[in-house]
Amino acid sequence: MKGIAVIAVCAAIVGLIVAVVLATWIKKQDQGTDRMKEISGFIREGAFAFLKREYKIMVIVIAVLFLLIGFCINWVTGILYICGAVLSVLAGFFGMNVATWGNVRTANAAKDGGMNKALKVAFRSGAVMGLAVAGLGLFGLGMVMVCLKLATVVQCVTGFGFGASSMALFGRVGGGIYTKAADVGADLVGKVEAGIPEDDPRNPAVIADNVGDNVGDVAGMGSDLYESYCGSIISAITLAAVAAGASGGLFDEATAAIFPLIMAAVGIIASVIGILLVRGKEGSNPANALNAGTYIASGIVVIVSIILSKAMLGSFAFSVAIIAGLIVGVAIGKITEIYTSEDYKSVKKIAEQSQTGSATTIISGLGVGMMSTVWPIICISVGIFAAYFATETVGAGMGMYGIALAAVGMLSTTGMTVAVDAYGPVSDNAGGIAEMSELPEGVRNITDKLDAVGNTTAAIGKGFAIGSAALTALALFASYSAVTGLTAISLLNPIVIIGLFIGAMLPFMFSAFTMNSVGRAANQMIEEVRRQFREDDGILAGTSKPDYAHCVDISTQAALKEMIVPGLMAIIAPLAVGIILGPEALGGMLAGALAAGVLLALMMANAGGAWDNAKKYVEGGAYGGKGSDTHKATVVGDTVGDPFKDTSGPSINILIKLMTIVSVVFAPLFVAIGGLIG
Amino acid sequence: MKGIAVIAVCAAIVGLIVAVVLATWIKKQDQGTDRMKEISGFIREGAFAFLKREYKIMVIVIAVLFLLIGFCINWVTGILYICGAVLSVLAGFFGMNVATWGNVRTANAAKDGGMNKALKVAFRSGAVMGLAVAGLGLFGLGMVMVCLKLATVVQCVTGFGFGASSMALFGRVGGGIYTKAADVGADLVGKVEAGIPEDDPRNPAVIADNVGDNVGDVAGMGSDLYESYCGSIISAITLAAVAAGASGGLFDEATAAIFPLIMAAVGIIASVIGILLVRGKEGSNPANALNAGTYIASGIVVIVSIILSKAMLGSFAFSVAIIAGLIVGVAIGKITEIYTSEDYKSVKKIAEQSQTGSATTIISGLGVGMMSTVWPIICISVGIFAAYFATETVGAGMGMYGIALAAVGMLSTTGMTVAVDAYGPVSDNAGGIAEMSELPEGVRNITDKLDAVGNTTAAIGKGFAIGSAALTALALFASYSAVTGLTAISLLNPIVIIGLFIGAMLPFMFSAFTMNSVGRAANQMIEEVRRQFREDDGILAGTSKPDYAHCVDISTQAALKEMIVPGLMAIIAPLAVGIILGPEALGGMLAGALAAGVLLALMMANAGGAWDNAKKYVEGGAYGGKGSDTHKATVVGDTVGDPFKDTSGPSINILIKLMTIVSVVFAPLFVAIGGLIG
Repeated sequence: MKGIAVIAVCAAIVGLIVAVVLATWIKKQDQGTDRMKEISGFIREGAFAFLKREYKIMVIVIAVLFLLIGFCINWVTGILYICGAVLSVLAGFFGMNVATWGNVRTANAAKDGGMNKALKVAFRSGAVMGLAVAGLGLFGLGMVMVCLKLATVVQCVTGFGFGASSMALFGRVGGGIYTKAADVGADLVGKVEAGIPEDDPRNPAVIADNVGDNVGDVAGMGSDLYESYCGSIISAITLAAVAAGASGGLFDEATAAIFPLIMAAVGIIASVIGILLVRGKEGSNPANALNAGTYIASGIVVIVSIILSKAMLGSFAFSVAIIAGLIVGVAIGKITEIYTSEDYKSVKKIAEQSQTGSATTIISGLGVGMMSTVWPIICISVGIFAAYFATETVGAGMGMYGIALAAVGMLSTTGMTVAVDAYGPVSDNAGGIAEMSELPEGVRNITDKLDAVGNTTAAIGKGFAIGSAALTALALFASYSAVTGLTAISLLNPIVIIGLFIGAMLPFMFSAFTMNSVGRAANQMIEEVRRQFREDDGILAGTSKPDYAHCVDISTQAALKEMIVPGLMAIIAPLAVGIILGPEALGGMLAGALAAGVLLALMMANAGGAWDNAKKYVEGGAYGGKGSDTHKATVVGDTVGDPFKDTSGPSINILIKLMTIVSVVFAPLFVAIGGLIG
Repeated sequence: MKGIAVIAVCAAIVGLIVAVVLATWIKKQDQGTDRMKEISGFIREGAFAFLKREYKIMVIVIAVLFLLIGFCINWVTGILYICGAVLSVLAGFFGMNVATWGNVRTANAAKDGGMNKALKVAFRSGAVMGLAVAGLGLFGLGMVMVCLKLATVVQCVTGFGFGASSMALFGRVGGGIYTKAADVGADLVGKVEAGIPEDDPRNPAVIADNVGDNVGDVAGMGSDLYESYCGSIISAITLAAVAAGASGGLFDEATAAIFPLIMAAVGIIASVIGILLVRGKEGSNPANALNAGTYIASGIVVIVSIILSKAMLGSFAFSVAIIAGLIVGVAIGKITEIYTSEDYKSVKKIAEQSQTGSATTIISGLGVGMMSTVWPIICISVGIFAAYFATETVGAGMGMYGIALAAVGMLSTTGMTVAVDAYGPVSDNAGGIAEMSELPEGVRNITDKLDAVGNTTAAIGKGFAIGSAALTALALFASYSAVTGLTAISLLNPIVIIGLFIGAMLPFMFSAFTMNSVGRAANQMIEEVRRQFREDDGILAGTSKPDYAHCVDISTQAALKEMIVPGLMAIIAPLAVGIILGPEALGGMLAGALAAGVLLALMMANAGGAWDNAKKYVEGGAYGGKGSDTHKATVVGDTVGDPFKDTSGPSINILIKLMTIVSVVFAPLFVAIGGLIG
């Protein structure tokens, strides 16, 4: 087993080397004018100011949770918790660092080299994040396999997942609050009150807004998928023993435990190939190039999974599970696009309905969001069905392992997926820099085109992230049952129903917290921007510089303060239910949170995306275009959609995964206590 | 048993006689001026035009479902289906008829007799609906008990519940679409575009709007609670055999089956006493009188339940379940009030946030709606816990019967609850008639005060309706397990998880349908009102009469047409899942729909109520008062909230109950087929 684990580690290292090579290539590109360097310097400074402050808190959280795990469970799990957390932080640091290199160089490439050069720089910046996420995740898990005995790995590797999850809380929730506080604050005072364009350097919150793209949309999204990536593999490892037992001697536990790592290794190599093959054609839609890369990477995984499934596990059934996961991921992305892109009727309908005012904008947007949940849920259901029953035919009891493999399959091309996703905010930032540096309109046209594609890929990425969270949480839920030894969590047991109700309630409560957080933080930002405009007339006149740093500081402080309550809630809720009501009630709670959470997340993310693009559609000239009453109505929709799609919706991914992994890690405790009153 | 069942029938008849006496008293009151009579005539005409059209469709639906049940299950169930449906229709007809007598007489009582006289007329009009709902429900179920053998009752009585459910679909969903299409249409063109006040007789949609109060808020709400009322009793009857088996000879099945009917009988008598004791004091808040009535009725049920629990079933434990249900009902009402009344901070916060525009109105309102789910869910959980474990101590396996009794307890005072709830729309209508008849301002002041209290009681009633739907659906879910003979519906079975996902998705899909329906129907209404204003200048000048009938017709047609798709969905979804994926998947689906549905319904109803009152709060003078930008922002919130709180939110109650009762009725079919692919 250890020999094969070394292969996985090597593949991870290959991914990381490619990331370093790409990063070096990016750094070598020209940064452009002094003004561009200055602005990009501000953004970097702001981003690292946030990270520095965040790290101080992370250290405390990591220390506390390490001790908690060590005392309550065991110290190896605690140490693996630290590994999972630190690698997540490293991935975020590395990826975001390169993204802040990439933004200005993308703008300059658009200036000097045209569309294709700009696409290349932007995409490669995203690719570094993608390969860092997958590479460091697989490196860590591979090393765990290499260094520890299998029994220890199975017992303790969930700590690694908990580390990934708890850092994703900072990334996605904290980052999400940061980016929307800055965005809403900048928009409401700058665009609406002062009437200056987006990304205007006179707006004091403009740097914070651009920092937010890096903090929330690059690092936050990366930490979310890092968590899913590790979680899916970990779940498969913990279910390997059950699978081996059910296989009737077809394969042993070690092989079943190493198989997901090998598939992940295949995925990294496939992603590297896909990434290197992405190149735009002058005049063609950049989305085509990105899609081609995704399809190539997926195709490689499909083919190799068929071979390895038979070779390693003695049956083609396991590749069915992996392919099912891959297809579900791609399908959810496509469905998301249909509901959130202005090329399809949902977005057009919102724009049309906006003619009767912002109330109908909101009603129709919520309607679209709710309706958009139907097909993703059907896809996930079919995927679960296929993965479970295909593998269950190999041996009764194998199905849960199959579901974990579906999650692994879906996430195997994470390197590629994150690359496409992170390309968006880099392009967005590049556009901001172009605007602030007053580059010629042609440059801005190129970055706008890149950004428009980036908006679509971001929406698709959000759908993918929700789908992967659902499948990962479900796989970890299966691990939970294996660890607790529960043979049934029956809905006919009222304590399970109580858990189900509480679980379904938590995503609503969590979303209320995060939405209110954005509201509060945005209000602080609004006050600050108004204050600066009021106290120094020179800012709007363009004669004196606004105090960017103060706005960055407000976002930073607000984000870190506001994530405390929802963060604590996500960790305490499963502990409280597990200890007080017992492991069965906790099982019900996890299922309730999973089902309601996925629905709410899909609704919020897609409604937000649809509102955003309805606004863009009207800005493109429909129904009176920019400045019309219809446009004003769509701006209201977009403003409501901002926390929906970039804070509350994606944060639910973290909630459902984090609560499940906390439950898995502390399961021995709950079983020992058995429920104080349950 | 039959002797005791006769007592229940007698209590039901007492309730019905009191209803008739009250109705006669109301009819004797003076209708006021000719103008008042004319307007009230329009409203009555419109309401009956809707009913007439609705009945035509109902006859077809009843016939089709009767045949379906007869062929697939058995004919006795089919006949009981007709009984349940017809009694629901009768209750709606009787209650709404009297409500349309009461509105004009309340207005006249406000004119001639002052506040207390007006309160008395309005409340007694509501009380007729309340006693009709409880009286006819109990009469029907009592007669079933008297006429059939117990074994036949247990096997077939679910048909009665299905009848109640399928008619509630017309009442709540159809009525909800009707009332909001008219309301939104009347408001957007009349108030916003033409600038005429609410309830102005020049508005062509004003009669349709007032009809909507009767159709949606009186008849629709009544049919919803009739469904819960019957469902809770039916569930307890079907679980009586299990309870008797678990009691170790403490009581027999017949006693366990008759006990819920006797408690319902006690509830009716208690409601009659409570209703007759409601009388306002000149100068005091009418809410106090209403609350006193509710507390008296509840107190009587509490005391008698303790006695009967011991006397009939040999243990006090069963009264714990009943009292738990009662307390949960009252508690949810109180919590609803806290989140939706302008006396508390949530509504004030929405008003405050509205100063920065309608986007923040929406965000904070959704935040309040989400947060408002927490305590009701905790109450329901505690109620389930108490009811289950108290009765489980009597004998293992008794707990599910205990949960059904909690639902019976919660709904035992339905007569009183519906009376308080239906009083609101009657007062609202009275205000409309006062405005349209140009009665002196003093009259309008009285009706406004009654209406303000009515708004609060309506919000409380909505919370209660959701809570009762949750508990009833859960009780019926227990019946489902008993009928299918499933001993576990385990979340570790992926087919159950698939069911759970699909179930959680259905309330979202259903809400999308109902919200879009309101949007479409309101648009038709807007077009029509605009057309009338455009084609006849005399309407706005006050020289020619608008064509009220055409607007009534539009609402009627739209409501009946738009409810087809969501209605079919609610019936087909459980049939499809049960037949294709099997009874276990269907169990998962019911649980998923229950959990997600209750959450979504609470969120929508409370957000809607909070927006409504935030607007009223600003209209009362806060943050610039009427006409300010803040006011405009709150109007957007209120418009979004309208379909939330009066259509989509309450319709989910019907969805979750209807899908559960369909599952119970057709359970034998699903068990026989066993799932085509599950």
